[in-house]
Amino acid sequence: MAGNAARIADVTVTPVAFRDYPLLNTVGVHEPYALRTIVEITTESGVTGIGETYGGTLHLERLRRAAEELTGLDVWNLNDLVARTTRALGPDTTGGDGMSGMVTGSSAVDRVMSPFDVACLDIQGKLIGRPVSDLLGGAVRPSVPYSGYLFYKWAGHPGQEDDDWGAALDPAGLVDQARRMIDTYGFSSLKLKGGVFPPDEETAAIRALRQTFPDLPLRLDPNAAWSPKTSLRVARELDGVLQYLEDPTEGIDGMASVAARTATPLATNMCVVSFDDLAPAVARASVRIILSDHHYWGGLRRCVQLSTLCDTFGLGLSMHSNSHLGISLAAMTHLGAAVPHLSYACDTHWPWKQPDEDVVDTEALRFSEGRVTVPTAPGLGVELDRDALARLHQQYLDCGLRDRDDTGYMRRYDSTFSTKTPRW
Amino acid sequence: MAGNAARIADVTVTPVAFRDYPLLNTVGVHEPYALRTIVEITTESGVTGIGETYGGTLHLERLRRAAEELTGLDVWNLNDLVARTTRALGPDTTGGDGMSGMVTGSSAVDRVMSPFDVACLDIQGKLIGRPVSDLLGGAVRPSVPYSGYLFYKWAGHPGQEDDDWGAALDPAGLVDQARRMIDTYGFSSLKLKGGVFPPDEETAAIRALRQTFPDLPLRLDPNAAWSPKTSLRVARELDGVLQYLEDPTEGIDGMASVAARTATPLATNMCVVSFDDLAPAVARASVRIILSDHHYWGGLRRCVQLSTLCDTFGLGLSMHSNSHLGISLAAMTHLGAAVPHLSYACDTHWPWKQPDEDVVDTEALRFSEGRVTVPTAPGLGVELDRDALARLHQQYLDCGLRDRDDTGYMRRYDSTFSTKTPRW
Repeated sequence: MAGNAARIADVTVTPVAFRDYPLLNTVGVHEPYALRTIVEITTESGVTGIGETYGGTLHLERLRRAAEELTGLDVWNLNDLVARTTRALGPDTTGGDGMSGMVTGSSAVDRVMSPFDVACLDIQGKLIGRPVSDLLGGAVRPSVPYSGYLFYKWAGHPGQEDDDWGAALDPAGLVDQARRMIDTYGFSSLKLKGGVFPPDEETAAIRALRQTFPDLPLRLDPNAAWSPKTSLRVARELDGVLQYLEDPTEGIDGMASVAARTATPLATNMCVVSFDDLAPAVARASVRIILSDHHYWGGLRRCVQLSTLCDTFGLGLSMHSNSHLGISLAAMTHLGAAVPHLSYACDTHWPWKQPDEDVVDTEALRFSEGRVTVPTAPGLGVELDRDALARLHQQYLDCGLRDRDDTGYMRRYDSTFSTKTPRW
Repeated sequence: MAGNAARIADVTVTPVAFRDYPLLNTVGVHEPYALRTIVEITTESGVTGIGETYGGTLHLERLRRAAEELTGLDVWNLNDLVARTTRALGPDTTGGDGMSGMVTGSSAVDRVMSPFDVACLDIQGKLIGRPVSDLLGGAVRPSVPYSGYLFYKWAGHPGQEDDDWGAALDPAGLVDQARRMIDTYGFSSLKLKGGVFPPDEETAAIRALRQTFPDLPLRLDPNAAWSPKTSLRVARELDGVLQYLEDPTEGIDGMASVAARTATPLATNMCVVSFDDLAPAVARASVRIILSDHHYWGGLRRCVQLSTLCDTFGLGLSMHSNSHLGISLAAMTHLGAAVPHLSYACDTHWPWKQPDEDVVDTEALRFSEGRVTVPTAPGLGVELDRDALARLHQQYLDCGLRDRDDTGYMRRYDSTFSTKTPRW
């Protein structure tokens, strides 16, 4: 091999789209396609590494700007990756959060560097013949537990045939969805995306799930749709029923006011989404569990550090998910394996992706008993399929979507739909 | 090479002693020899890595017990190193702190695993042809700044000829010591070990240093010899003079009471010495600067995590030192290079070691302008000299010292010497 094995020669950034289901949340409904961005790094000697992040115009533009700064970077110097990303962004750090407005306030540098961090670790692993989990401190578990992610959903996208999952708009529908998800993947914990219907309806759904699956830990995530008062009432009603209640209400102070008066553990991936949020959240005892997400927290190494920090301050650690492809699932699995202080099964949207759509061969990522075995091949353990990448990129070009807009999509069918918070 | 390149086949633990100067501190005076322990790890394929820690009977016994658990460990799985060390120690975690009583409360697991963590990283680096700094995230600076560590001292050990540094028992003696240290090493900041004489004498010494070296940051460390009231008085007197005041008084609460009422930044390596201490110290705003020490904080990777944690909670980061040899200096330098959030020059006892005594060739560790250039050879960048190790081990056997005892040594010459705190 010619050239420096570890020095970056080339970076490509490719937006892709994959089919998504009409999953409901408090800001609207998932559009027919979910947007992701795939990065591929090639070193001077021709070793390649891959990373995945969310889509969106501004984020994509920033990724491309950062990519231009990476030529010559040594993949072992992840501190230099931070420095170069910071330089590439300059003062442009507002917006581009990519969650249809549900999560704001995460660090633009951390978000933009994340897929490159993953790709550099992929290359490191390939260079030394080691899985990424070893580069994060070594796997402490052979497989990583995930939870089944339940959504209220329409039967199909408007104007299309009903999809294979069908509608889930009441407790019975969710119980059916959960049963199929457990049968297929073996999940041994369940999370319900709430904030869609009035709290009492969602409470009823949780009780139906509890009755049907008496031994499974349950979580409810209304994405801050509730006032502190409503949050407190529901938290008290579900005391002993929920493993944790995720982001019932908005903000570090709002969450703190609820946390102080209920035994139900509160979790967040909305009020603590960056390292900057940790000190105030700890000071106010806003939450007991942080949902990490390497896409928002600066990649895998920063998330290992977040884990130590949570352990140090007595906070539990879980993992957040967006609609994602196999590169992200591999990265999440390596991270989940290497973090001793992982207190809960990780979230994943994996069941909501078509099995025939990905940019990698997903054979190495099969679920068994709700867990994914940590890949042991060098690097991430998944390889980019360039034909598949081209197909999903073409789908991106064709679908016309450029920014996730759950709210706009919902308003096409319900012009009165409002994202006012708190809704209840 | 036969066998698994990264699997540990053999670990040796060797106690050594090197000559030390009669340096005064609040618990007594340094004995004629300082005790250290050298660990060497050999993998199945014959790659070796080295680490260094402090000495002492109990610590040495624990290191040997942990060493027995390490056969078969993969040097890339540092999480497994933690698990094996924890298992080896079991409930035996009291004492063995090794600082002549000055620092207690650090984590036994973190202390025992530290030299093995360093040795594993040394091997990792050798296996992949990379310096340890790369394994910690990459060097953010080509050289690491150290501060000149001034001590009150006797002219020589009792019963021996005066040593080459001579006495330093007043401001003039310290200024002379500082001048020689700066001339030799080029330090551009100075730390005075205090807690030896009444505070006003030490304040006078600081003022003399300030007058002689008007541009050099100055630090004073009385090792908790003062009451909160005395601490507050001195802190206020030296406001604007000191870069920071280190551990003027005892405990997280004591330090907090001083910190709340002075502008002088307080630092510690006594009241925050383990991850367990961080939450209460942050909650009470006890200190503004943490002195890390990889020997006490679980090795180099844990110290990188400590750095992120300090950055997250708005704490400055400096580095603590004990009497040490070249392996530790190399490790400290790799760590200091790879930590973006290193706010201050690191402490080192290097000038207090005889140049002809070490267990490695120290050529790669030469000081220039108070800084050590980060070694770029694979691993730590220093190699064990087995003849030198044998000599210092023989010196350990011959000198008869087995546990650091500054207080007992002092009492041989001053039977009334008391370590009562606060002394002033």
